[in-house]
Amino acid sequence: MKIYIIGIGLIGGSMALDIKSIYDDARIFGIDANEKHLDEAIQLGLIDEKASENDLINADLIIVSVPVDVGLVILPNILDKIGEQTLVFDVGSTKSPICEAIANHPKRRNFLACHPIAGTEFSGPKAAVKGLFEGKTNIICEVEKTTFKLQEKAMDLFKKLGMRIRYMDPKSHDKHIAYVSHLSHISSFMLGKTVIEKEKDEQDIFDMAGSGFESTVRLAKSSPAMWTPIFKQNKKQVVKSLEEYIHNLSNFKKLLEEDNYDEVFNEMQNTNRIKEILK
Amino acid sequence: MKIYIIGIGLIGGSMALDIKSIYDDARIFGIDANEKHLDEAIQLGLIDEKASENDLINADLIIVSVPVDVGLVILPNILDKIGEQTLVFDVGSTKSPICEAIANHPKRRNFLACHPIAGTEFSGPKAAVKGLFEGKTNIICEVEKTTFKLQEKAMDLFKKLGMRIRYMDPKSHDKHIAYVSHLSHISSFMLGKTVIEKEKDEQDIFDMAGSGFESTVRLAKSSPAMWTPIFKQNKKQVVKSLEEYIHNLSNFKKLLEEDNYDEVFNEMQNTNRIKEILK
Repeated sequence: MKIYIIGIGLIGGSMALDIKSIYDDARIFGIDANEKHLDEAIQLGLIDEKASENDLINADLIIVSVPVDVGLVILPNILDKIGEQTLVFDVGSTKSPICEAIANHPKRRNFLACHPIAGTEFSGPKAAVKGLFEGKTNIICEVEKTTFKLQEKAMDLFKKLGMRIRYMDPKSHDKHIAYVSHLSHISSFMLGKTVIEKEKDEQDIFDMAGSGFESTVRLAKSSPAMWTPIFKQNKKQVVKSLEEYIHNLSNFKKLLEEDNYDEVFNEMQNTNRIKEILK
Repeated sequence: MKIYIIGIGLIGGSMALDIKSIYDDARIFGIDANEKHLDEAIQLGLIDEKASENDLINADLIIVSVPVDVGLVILPNILDKIGEQTLVFDVGSTKSPICEAIANHPKRRNFLACHPIAGTEFSGPKAAVKGLFEGKTNIICEVEKTTFKLQEKAMDLFKKLGMRIRYMDPKSHDKHIAYVSHLSHISSFMLGKTVIEKEKDEQDIFDMAGSGFESTVRLAKSSPAMWTPIFKQNKKQVVKSLEEYIHNLSNFKKLLEEDNYDEVFNEMQNTNRIKEILK
């Protein structure tokens, strides 16, 4: 089984690690714009060898795990080069643009649009970890547009990775994910920015920061190269979620300014419901 | 050694657990407005017996671990009742109001104003855990106003709890902590609110929420009864930090609306510095 992973970072690299232990006959080829990352991926045992896009005709499976702007550009070219039986799936955090980009491609039925909700704040081949996808959700869009046989092939892999599957149309995906993922990243980045701006003496931050701050600001360590194109592609939904977030923060500030602590209490108590939701 | 803990919740209860394993001769008495919490604290082995404020004359050490509005009211009464050698310290998340409240009390020198930067999003006696304070920072305010002998007694305990000590004046404490703790809680609560409002079908949140969202929204599980008086007491600093946070979020939204993705990238890259600061 020949597997080509395009983009050997946190997600591609972690997939590689798991695939190696799942399929005895897996041979993993890596393609990456960053030559250093490819060398690291070989050293770390993520891939067996480097490859180029011209080899894709030989692929049984191609995983596209690159920033979402790059994915838009390369996916049509990839589909141009594959064989009839090749399965291609992506792992990007936006789904409408990529589904639109290949909607009329002759090889549309070889492609499965995926978003495994898994990751950490780290990036690059060194961030790859085994078992990253165990128990996580994989959102699949427009499943009906993929050949059934290749759907089955993908499902076999996702099942062995330990993932739960949810089907969703691309627009719904992009709307919901703006709230539960994209907005969290912005809230975290801007919290980090606000504190760094204030605290010129960084030692003070370090000494006073408890686990609460660390948890809330964790996503501010994420890769700007990965996140900028996500925000760009999901601009409309992200801006809308940001507007609502800013509205809620402004209202909370107003309640404080008006000394309306009963309502301050209620705002928090109503939100405590997140405990049950996320349990 | 007779230790009275007033408020047997996450912090008071966790202190009780550690103190029991540190001092062989420790006998721990619990005082709490919530009778059910006192019963739980006995069942959980946090305290040896219930007590009342009238017993405080016998105390070697009194730990005041109640919501900060309650602390303001009861601390003067506690100081009225103690003996010459009794050490009293608090653990509240605001320091100016409590230091002002007892500034002219005849027993001021028996009191040490503390803020151990430790905790979780849970509350009540059941939230108590062993080793909570290990490796954490304890901020001490106005140390010079406490009798040296009682300072030593407190330092001995904090050292055995594994805490690092930082000295700070109350105003600086309240200013810095607004940014690294109080603001994080509001950012998290309002993120939770924004997502709950949007996602009427809660199963969607659960299925799509990754570890990133869970981490960013974790503090929204915190106790409103504990946090409302903190925001009230530190209103000025909290409102200021919120203003700056909202300003940064609005600016980020503006950059997205203007399609200024170079600056969107820069905003995130500059904030990535939090990696080194928090390492």
